[in-house]
Formats: sequence, structure tokens, C-alpha cells
Amino acid sequence: MATRDPEAKKRLLLDAALREFAAHGIAGARVDQIARAAGVSAGLVYTYFGSKDDLFAAVFDDIVAGTLTSTPITPDDLAEYAGRLFDRYEDRPEVQRFVNWYRLEAASTPQLHPASLASMVEKTRIIQEAQEAGTITRFLPAVDLLGVILQLASVWENATPEYSSLVAGHTRGQRRKVITDSVAALLRA
Amino acid sequence: MATRDPEAKKRLLLDAALREFAAHGIAGARVDQIARAAGVSAGLVYTYFGSKDDLFAAVFDDIVAGTLTSTPITPDDLAEYAGRLFDRYEDRPEVQRFVNWYRLEAASTPQLHPASLASMVEKTRIIQEAQEAGTITRFLPAVDLLGVILQLASVWENATPEYSSLVAGHTRGQRRKVITDSVAALLRA
Repeated sequence: MATRDPEAKKRLLLDAALREFAAHGIAGARVDQIARAAGVSAGLVYTYFGSKDDLFAAVFDDIVAGTLTSTPITPDDLAEYAGRLFDRYEDRPEVQRFVNWYRLEAASTPQLHPASLASMVEKTRIIQEAQEAGTITRFLPAVDLLGVILQLASVWENATPEYSSLVAGHTRGQRRKVITDSVAALLRA
Repeated sequence: MATRDPEAKKRLLLDAALREFAAHGIAGARVDQIARAAGVSAGLVYTYFGSKDDLFAAVFDDIVAGTLTSTPITPDDLAEYAGRLFDRYEDRPEVQRFVNWYRLEAASTPQLHPASLASMVEKTRIIQEAQEAGTITRFLPAVDLLGVILQLASVWENATPEYSSLVAGHTRGQRRKVITDSVAALLRA
């Protein structure tokens, strides 16, 4: 685990911080635990990232950049876009948990994350252009269609334990198909 | 605030507990703060409800019962059902926050709440019967259609702050219409 490469250490710290924040939220996360999991000193966390809030922001930026790279929006196939978002949530459940903590705890830190905001603006613009070109339904304004698609992509991750228990027998493929079929139905409206 | 009626005191405690849990989660909520907000002694909380976890369960049961009473499922108009769920979330934002905390913190308390589970089973049965009677689309199995509708009803409550900032100019009526229009589109599939 020991590495002398600063970039490699930062990578280890971001991954450890994502796991710790996903498990315990911002308030509950412990920097010394993150440092231990990454195999570095706690002092190095502050040297690299500043405060715990700054580290949280760095993890957030890293997640947004990773999602943009792994799962770019495809305006010619938004159903499959939702399916690929689902794939990413399934493969990295800690990402969705991290975002859920952020939503709950953001009330105490109301500033918006620039990378996430820019990503939402850009996705809205791409959908709107496709609507103006006539290739996507206009039954909802672009920003609303984006919100509905993002919500449908996380239908399984956002369910309560009680609801989830009813679909415990679903395969991953079944769950994915509910999302892509639902978005496809919306796009036909 | 002072009342000698035990039922009135329990009601004040459940309401105060909902606000405290919605603000701070299960782990972060303080029983003494709940008692103070309700105008009773902390000892009385334990007398009435047992542990903090028991109080959380009592609030959960109270929310489920309240939602079933105020917002019964209407299989002949599921779009409007989703609209009425949205109304309830808007009128009582602390309910959705409470549920979101539960989803995140439930990993440490994996037992399912019987009232919520029974409500999900019943809603699925009602949708399935309407599907068998031919009055609701069968493009999704009943349990999946329920999950998608519940998710769409909370599209605004579950959004990230960054996405929400893009729709800050929406009226409540506009936001409600996005939900009912989306569910209506699914039901035509």
C-alpha cells in the first residue's frame, strides 16, 4: 500500500474518503479513519486537501468527473443513457450513498458544487438542442425531462428497504429493463 | 404547551421527534431535545416509547398511517395519486427527509418496518388487480410500476441542490404537472 508518489497517494485518499463519507456522511466521517484506510498520515490529508469539508468537495468533484467520463449523456438514446447510469450506480453503490448524504447534509452547507452544476447545465442544453432539432419529445421542458430521467435511473438505489424487499428476487437485468423501458415510454409521449 | 392528557403528550412528542429526526437523522437526534421541544421531561419519552430506536419506529408507523389516510392509492387515477403524494411531500418536507435518513441509516438496523411493508404489499396488490381487470397498463409488472410511480412522485424532493437550482423558478403547480404528466405518459405505454 505504501507509495511515495503524491498523485497515487491522493488517488488512494479520494477512494478511501468516498467510502468513509458514503458510510457515515460528512458529519460522521473521520479524517483519521480515511488516512488509515489509505495508508497515509492524517497530517497528509490536511496538507493535500485542507479541511474535511474541502476533502468532501474534492471527492464530489472526482465523482462528477468520473460520471461524465464513464457515462456521457447520449441524446439520441436517453433510455440507454439511463441504463448506463444505473450500471454505474450498481457497480459503485457508494457513489449514490455519498450523493444521498450530501442531499441531506447540504442544508448546513448551501454552496453549490461548480462541477455538478456545470454538468447539469450542459446536460439540459444537450437535451434542449435535441428537442429543437425534433429528435426528442417536447412533452416536458428539457430541464424537467432531465430531472425525471435522472430520477428513474436511481429508482432502485433510492427505494426504501421495505419496497426493496418486494423486488429482492429481481435480477440486475430485470431492474435495468424497468428503467430503460420507463424512459423509452416517456420519450414516446 | 403543558397538557396532562397522555395521548396529547404522545402526539406532541411524535411531532417533535419527526422534526428532530428529519433534521439530524437517527444517530444525530437527541432525545432531550425532542422532550424539550414537546414540553415534557426526557424521562417521559422513555416511559412512553422505550429507546430512541423505538421512538424512531413509532414515528415511522405514524408517518405510514398518516400517508395511508391522507393519500390512499387510487388505481383508476395513478397520475393524480402521484400528484397527491407530491402535495404531501411539499406540505410536509420533514417526512421525506425522515425517510431519506432512514434509507441511509437502515444499513445498521436492517429489520423492516411492518406497517410500511404491509402498505407496499397492499399497493402492489391493488395495482395488480387493476392490471388483471385491464384498466392499467401491463407494460411493467405491478411491483415495478409502483416503484416507478413512487419515485416520480418524489422527483423534486430527491433532487440534488445543483439540479434544484436550475428549476428554482418553477411554481409548485409546474412541478406537480411534471409528475402527473410523466406518470400519465407511462400509463399510456
